[in-house]
Amino acid sequence: MEDHFQNPLRDIVLQKMYSGEWAGTMCLTEPGAGSDVGALKTTAKRNADGTFSIVGTKSFISGGDQDLSPNIIHPVLARIEGDPKGTKGISIFMVPKIRFNEKGELGEPNDIFCSGIESKMGIHGSATCTINFGDNGKCIGYLMGGERQGMPIMFHMMNEERQAVGMIGASLAGAAYLHALDYCKQRIQGQNVIAMALKVENAPAVPIIDHPDIRRMLIKMKSISEGLRALCLLCYFCMDNMFSAMFSKQLDPNANKEELDKQKEYWEGMIEILTPVVKAYATDMGMVVCDLAVQSYGGYGYCREYPVEQMMRDQKINSLYEGTNGIQALDLLGRKIGMKKGANFTNLLNYTKDAIDEAEKIDTLKPEAAIVKDALTACGITAKEFSKMIAVTPFVPLIGACDYLNCLGDALVGWLHLRIATEATKKFFDPSTSEQDKSFYRGKIEGAKFFINRITGLVIPKLENLKKDEQSAMNIPLESFAGA
Amino acid sequence: MEDHFQNPLRDIVLQKMYSGEWAGTMCLTEPGAGSDVGALKTTAKRNADGTFSIVGTKSFISGGDQDLSPNIIHPVLARIEGDPKGTKGISIFMVPKIRFNEKGELGEPNDIFCSGIESKMGIHGSATCTINFGDNGKCIGYLMGGERQGMPIMFHMMNEERQAVGMIGASLAGAAYLHALDYCKQRIQGQNVIAMALKVENAPAVPIIDHPDIRRMLIKMKSISEGLRALCLLCYFCMDNMFSAMFSKQLDPNANKEELDKQKEYWEGMIEILTPVVKAYATDMGMVVCDLAVQSYGGYGYCREYPVEQMMRDQKINSLYEGTNGIQALDLLGRKIGMKKGANFTNLLNYTKDAIDEAEKIDTLKPEAAIVKDALTACGITAKEFSKMIAVTPFVPLIGACDYLNCLGDALVGWLHLRIATEATKKFFDPSTSEQDKSFYRGKIEGAKFFINRITGLVIPKLENLKKDEQSAMNIPLESFAGA
Repeated sequence: MEDHFQNPLRDIVLQKMYSGEWAGTMCLTEPGAGSDVGALKTTAKRNADGTFSIVGTKSFISGGDQDLSPNIIHPVLARIEGDPKGTKGISIFMVPKIRFNEKGELGEPNDIFCSGIESKMGIHGSATCTINFGDNGKCIGYLMGGERQGMPIMFHMMNEERQAVGMIGASLAGAAYLHALDYCKQRIQGQNVIAMALKVENAPAVPIIDHPDIRRMLIKMKSISEGLRALCLLCYFCMDNMFSAMFSKQLDPNANKEELDKQKEYWEGMIEILTPVVKAYATDMGMVVCDLAVQSYGGYGYCREYPVEQMMRDQKINSLYEGTNGIQALDLLGRKIGMKKGANFTNLLNYTKDAIDEAEKIDTLKPEAAIVKDALTACGITAKEFSKMIAVTPFVPLIGACDYLNCLGDALVGWLHLRIATEATKKFFDPSTSEQDKSFYRGKIEGAKFFINRITGLVIPKLENLKKDEQSAMNIPLESFAGA
Repeated sequence: MEDHFQNPLRDIVLQKMYSGEWAGTMCLTEPGAGSDVGALKTTAKRNADGTFSIVGTKSFISGGDQDLSPNIIHPVLARIEGDPKGTKGISIFMVPKIRFNEKGELGEPNDIFCSGIESKMGIHGSATCTINFGDNGKCIGYLMGGERQGMPIMFHMMNEERQAVGMIGASLAGAAYLHALDYCKQRIQGQNVIAMALKVENAPAVPIIDHPDIRRMLIKMKSISEGLRALCLLCYFCMDNMFSAMFSKQLDPNANKEELDKQKEYWEGMIEILTPVVKAYATDMGMVVCDLAVQSYGGYGYCREYPVEQMMRDQKINSLYEGTNGIQALDLLGRKIGMKKGANFTNLLNYTKDAIDEAEKIDTLKPEAAIVKDALTACGITAKEFSKMIAVTPFVPLIGACDYLNCLGDALVGWLHLRIATEATKKFFDPSTSEQDKSFYRGKIEGAKFFINRITGLVIPKLENLKKDEQSAMNIPLESFAGA
């Protein structure tokens, strides 16, 4: 294995950060350079001692300044004087808040100033800072990796961040669901709907989980949040397999290196496709769950006395940061699906086949298996049709990109639910399964049926709609948008 | 006309309130009686002088206490001692914060205590209070109308409130859209997508309204918010017609009273159907618009520096208060559609025909006319099928109620867009129309095309999905919901 710890600077910083003593940030965005990273203006000027002088302003820096850790390490994207415009001229620098010596002992501050903290809708526990680097010309940075390697280095982190944001989206959804479930079991309001219809005298008030509309909201929350978690874990599973192939190649002297390279490439390709889906779909759908959680509480959900209104406010950031969900959709359709002539995407679709075949053999899951199979097939066909459209009606796929990503999410999560339901059905009918576990598996089966029938079941008409040559979004002249 | 001003108490209160000198509230909800109003516990005990002593606690009272007006009039739902359980035993009382004499001069406070103010996600300008009435046994109330008439009297107000909440939903959406539009015209970020695809060197950065995904969000916001406004106005138009029939009957000595009664009944029926749709659809879709507005700002949308994050937080209350949207859906499916053997609903569907016929004659609107016609027809058919299911699989329509309401909204707003586009097309081709006005009409036509194709166009598959005998929401046992 390559030894990452032979550079004294790196040794100090990584050990202090990994131990949790020092904190870190990611300094990418600038006031005029968000989605368009290449437009950044922060500069790096060479010093005689090999360090660089950093000058510029970064915005939306999570944990950009705080008093919780004695030092903060800022990885900062900047352009070395004379380097080309756009993303290809960007380098990345390690810029500490407080300078330190070769023993890691802290010294002078490094000319870094937090010039503003955002007031936000949510995530109030995170200080979102604007940071000025080098206002007095004395901010020292150390080049990370090679010159003009800023984007690939940053995106190594960014891709993991995107998966993490998806996981946060799924986790907030899961937490909001469990709170809502608890509330709906306890809150007594109204009579059982059948008792009401039959005009039963003195029918008792019931917990609201008795009401069909509350149950619809709960099973929708359950099936989305559990499905999103499975989607995030699928991506991490691919990552485990990728690392496993890499490490086996390095550690096992008898390894078939060619085969392991192929495996690494295969799982890497799966991760490439899945990352934008995990990030955008888990946060869009996570928002649906948080909104439903508030809704199921009634007016109490709107009050800070209960936790779900905060979860809804916190959730909204996830569709915005680490690349807006619109950027994820462009990444998926414009880059990832077409990579290696579509091989990664084909691999992903082929990967789903075994589990569908297995589910088809279980009578109670046959209809669901068919829905999932057809939805995934339609996602594949639509991707091909979109790629053909690029030369003729390019705006049709571009207008449809976000919705396409969500259709693919609906199909993939439906497939994950099918896998879950297949396992759960086997366990449910296994005589050695305890009653408590049976109840758990029953929940998984019903959740899968809801998701696949109600959500995956709409993928095909949604995709058909996206393929329509309906370009009003582009046809409308700029001055015609207003018109109140 | 009946003279509403012959009661001295009423004279004082209504004049003070109508002039804006005194404020008012609506005291319906109690901690244990929200959606289930009949469960209320507030009591009214007869006093010798004809007044009542009110004792109870009301929660979620907007403007329940404040220092802006010298007095606050609380209409309070309560049960007179000995009256029956449930909603049929409820009376309504006029309960002033400060007592007053026959000249309207203020006297002693009326034993009313604001025991709490909610911390909420939004609408921070409105004090949401818990109010204790008669903690010391000295809260005097005056019966409004007859005994046990509380529900019809309150619902006279409630129905107008529901329309008003829908209008707030539409208005917040419209405001959020216009802010987002303004921002997207000004914010410079990224290159034109065609220039990027063609790898044009040094292509300038453009306003983000140039990007297809931003345009999709903007035209979606535009077409939803303008469509919601039209829906709210349709309901107010019906109200104008209803009042016009009522007043004509009372004021015009030569009026055909029978014919005017029929007209009144017709428009009243339209209002009955439209009210829950206006309330729930305009607030659910209004939330979609506010969320998109935040999204189109990118990270800035999440910051309080810009107005849209507040609008999104403020919007959420509208799906909760004045009857949750789930309650609206039950009102629509369980009461309103079946009223008078479905006559009101049939009237509404028939009312749409002329405009569809007219649009069908305009070549450029033919496809959209067909989509709207089919969607409305499918809403009618589904309502009939749902009513047949009630005896066989009652949970299918109950699980589908909210989604059905939104499908009907999608169809009705599509129809309103068709009417708008018909007018706009005529004006667009009228040689006397100015260039500026043409631009306005062009926007209306494109907005209509987006809404009808992209949103109304999905009503039929959505309804088909709702009709499936898929009852996982009810089949899942209570203990199987958890299972993390």
